[in-house]
Amino acid sequence: MPQIKKQIVEDFLNDLASGSPAPGGGSVAALAGAHSAALVSMVCRLTIDKKKYKDVEKEMKEVLKKSEKLRERFLILAEEDKSAFLNVIREKYSAKSLKKAAAVPAETTKLANEVIKLAKIAKQKGNKNAITDAKIAVDLAQVAKKGAILNVEANL
Amino acid sequence: MPQIKKQIVEDFLNDLASGSPAPGGGSVAALAGAHSAALVSMVCRLTIDKKKYKDVEKEMKEVLKKSEKLRERFLILAEEDKSAFLNVIREKYSAKSLKKAAAVPAETTKLANEVIKLAKIAKQKGNKNAITDAKIAVDLAQVAKKGAILNVEANL
Repeated sequence: MPQIKKQIVEDFLNDLASGSPAPGGGSVAALAGAHSAALVSMVCRLTIDKKKYKDVEKEMKEVLKKSEKLRERFLILAEEDKSAFLNVIREKYSAKSLKKAAAVPAETTKLANEVIKLAKIAKQKGNKNAITDAKIAVDLAQVAKKGAILNVEANL
Repeated sequence: MPQIKKQIVEDFLNDLASGSPAPGGGSVAALAGAHSAALVSMVCRLTIDKKKYKDVEKEMKEVLKKSEKLRERFLILAEEDKSAFLNVIREKYSAKSLKKAAAVPAETTKLANEVIKLAKIAKQKGNKNAITDAKIAVDLAQVAKKGAILNVEANL
């Protein structure tokens, strides 16, 4: 199976919609985190180097550095969730495989919390023309968190 | 610019994170709808042809048909949102271009409502092993709806 981040959008959605349980909601939660982080980065970039937002430029640069790192990590987590769940199936739901599969959404939860914080800063201090994007980033990160928590619980 | 549905996942996220305001939150809202619809399709497929779920098989087949159509349409809306917003920039925020740009999230809102209904059926009646996926589908469709409404308002 190809890596999610290297897949064509349409092909990934076909895999998701298929009758295989992986990729499933866990990968989607991590991808929601990646989309949220990308929106935060966009808002930062639309704020940096603008006279009107000179006062928040330093903070926006720091937010951008963090959101870019999180975006990359979320893509890896989307992949790891798929692999871990395929392993659960191969191992016939063994305790060991389930424990491993719970570790991925646990990290997604943690990172989603970080993105929520960044998206709220972007919403509050970023370019007002992009406030809708920042609001969507907040909501999406919250779905990433909620979805990841559901997946941790499902694997316990 | 390449079509979103034909882009590599990673490349689309790079475009999203860039300093160009399009693609932005509007496309992401439509993509959230596409991911939600794909999860609904997966839950349907994991339910159909299972003895235990014989009673809901007919309904699940109908849900599947609808979710597959919605998924396709959401991908087109993600693209149309990007094009409409690039046109708004080209046309320097003319009333005509803004009106056109508001029509896309208006349709996303409508379709998100449909996916919410389907995801709730999948959650209630689908394979219990995939209930987490159905729950994430509901939440994601709600973000698609909320994000699309924000975009309609922003373009009014």
